[in-house]
Amino acid sequence: MAEQTKRIVEENNMGDKIEVINSKVEEVELEEMVDIIVSEWMGYNLLYESMLQSVLYARDKFLKKDGFMFPEKASLYIAPICDEDYIDRLKEWNNMKERYKVCMKSMIPYAQKCMARNVQITCVPQEAIQSHKCEICSLDLRSVTISDLQNIQCSFEMKCFGQSHINGVVTWFTVEFPSAIILSTSPYEESTHWAQSVFHLSQYIDVEQDSMIRGTISIQPNSISNRFLDVVLKYRKDSQKETVQNILMDDKLI
Amino acid sequence: MAEQTKRIVEENNMGDKIEVINSKVEEVELEEMVDIIVSEWMGYNLLYESMLQSVLYARDKFLKKDGFMFPEKASLYIAPICDEDYIDRLKEWNNMKERYKVCMKSMIPYAQKCMARNVQITCVPQEAIQSHKCEICSLDLRSVTISDLQNIQCSFEMKCFGQSHINGVVTWFTVEFPSAIILSTSPYEESTHWAQSVFHLSQYIDVEQDSMIRGTISIQPNSISNRFLDVVLKYRKDSQKETVQNILMDDKLI
Repeated sequence: MAEQTKRIVEENNMGDKIEVINSKVEEVELEEMVDIIVSEWMGYNLLYESMLQSVLYARDKFLKKDGFMFPEKASLYIAPICDEDYIDRLKEWNNMKERYKVCMKSMIPYAQKCMARNVQITCVPQEAIQSHKCEICSLDLRSVTISDLQNIQCSFEMKCFGQSHINGVVTWFTVEFPSAIILSTSPYEESTHWAQSVFHLSQYIDVEQDSMIRGTISIQPNSISNRFLDVVLKYRKDSQKETVQNILMDDKLI
Repeated sequence: MAEQTKRIVEENNMGDKIEVINSKVEEVELEEMVDIIVSEWMGYNLLYESMLQSVLYARDKFLKKDGFMFPEKASLYIAPICDEDYIDRLKEWNNMKERYKVCMKSMIPYAQKCMARNVQITCVPQEAIQSHKCEICSLDLRSVTISDLQNIQCSFEMKCFGQSHINGVVTWFTVEFPSAIILSTSPYEESTHWAQSVFHLSQYIDVEQDSMIRGTISIQPNSISNRFLDVVLKYRKDSQKETVQNILMDDKLI
């Protein structure tokens, strides 16, 4: 990668202005402080396999006091969804008896349990979304600390558009640059390779117009592999009982 | 998985006829020989991450002399392709100067080199295929041995349909059951989750009608991880010089 970057520098006759250093940022020594740090560190659900810790290390060590961070802000959002495709795929198990002469209805709760433990990376159709978005976190990349990332936790409150069957929540992120330039991975914008992250609920929620879904979400690096994320989702409708769901974002992403 | 299989057995009231054993086949002891072994062991390019070795172990230990293997035969095929999508994606690098004011033409040979070292799992459109298929291997699963799988090697000879620019070869497989029932992963059949395997050539070949592409392909389990495959592809057009290409099928499949 570094060798190829050098080739691109040469190709643009910038060899006298750009120096490519092939090293972990944690192992670099520079003779002067820098004006700007540009890094594409974002992962699925913003923080999965994210390189943000290394970027913050570089910021604290190398960035001038009024230097720029590109991007300078990152925000994560959540909204409830009715995933019709998921419903159809589950219902398929009801057709096995007719198609293959083997009853496989018991696969439905099994598949639901598997889906609720994991995260699906997919582009969510806009019509699946059942409320306005709610902000989970907003990171000011000029000031956020590595320890802030160890436990991101927030409560959410989502007021449903209308009658629906909520079987998941979707998250997406935006990152911002100066002059209000925004890179958005929202389902309302053109799709990106990050798509969106869908968390299928272990407990479905039937809602009416203005039903409130309240809860909390916490996101932590997994204690064994910090590339992975432990997500805890707690949710309830109106004054009903709360459901607690533990999700692991590991390399078995669906 | 075994627990869920038991649930399906119960659901079909077959608990008195079917016993589910949750074990590696290498660790099972049975009191009698079996009439049939049914196993879906096939991987990408037939043998990638394949469980065939375990199936052959079970066959040699447990199958009655005239017992059935389901499937009983597996065949792997190869054909040359002109991958237009690949050409378009490479050409995109020529547009970077106009789009982003950075010349990135040097990415083209770099991308080609990366692509030629790896395998792309994708559904190949029929019109990309530039000759009739050629059989790489045909395994009789009643008699093939584990040592036969350690080095599958064959020569191929492919006579091109017409003028074209060959930038890859595609492989696919079929498996057969008694009564001529065939599961095919051919690009001419309905697509399956195995899709096809595309090996992009490091040396492109311009061909005319009846140009002959001759060569050999060898497929071996990787010496470090036997889930992976080492593939060596040698090819030449007519009487031109042979190109040798080493490909690793590891978990970085594209």
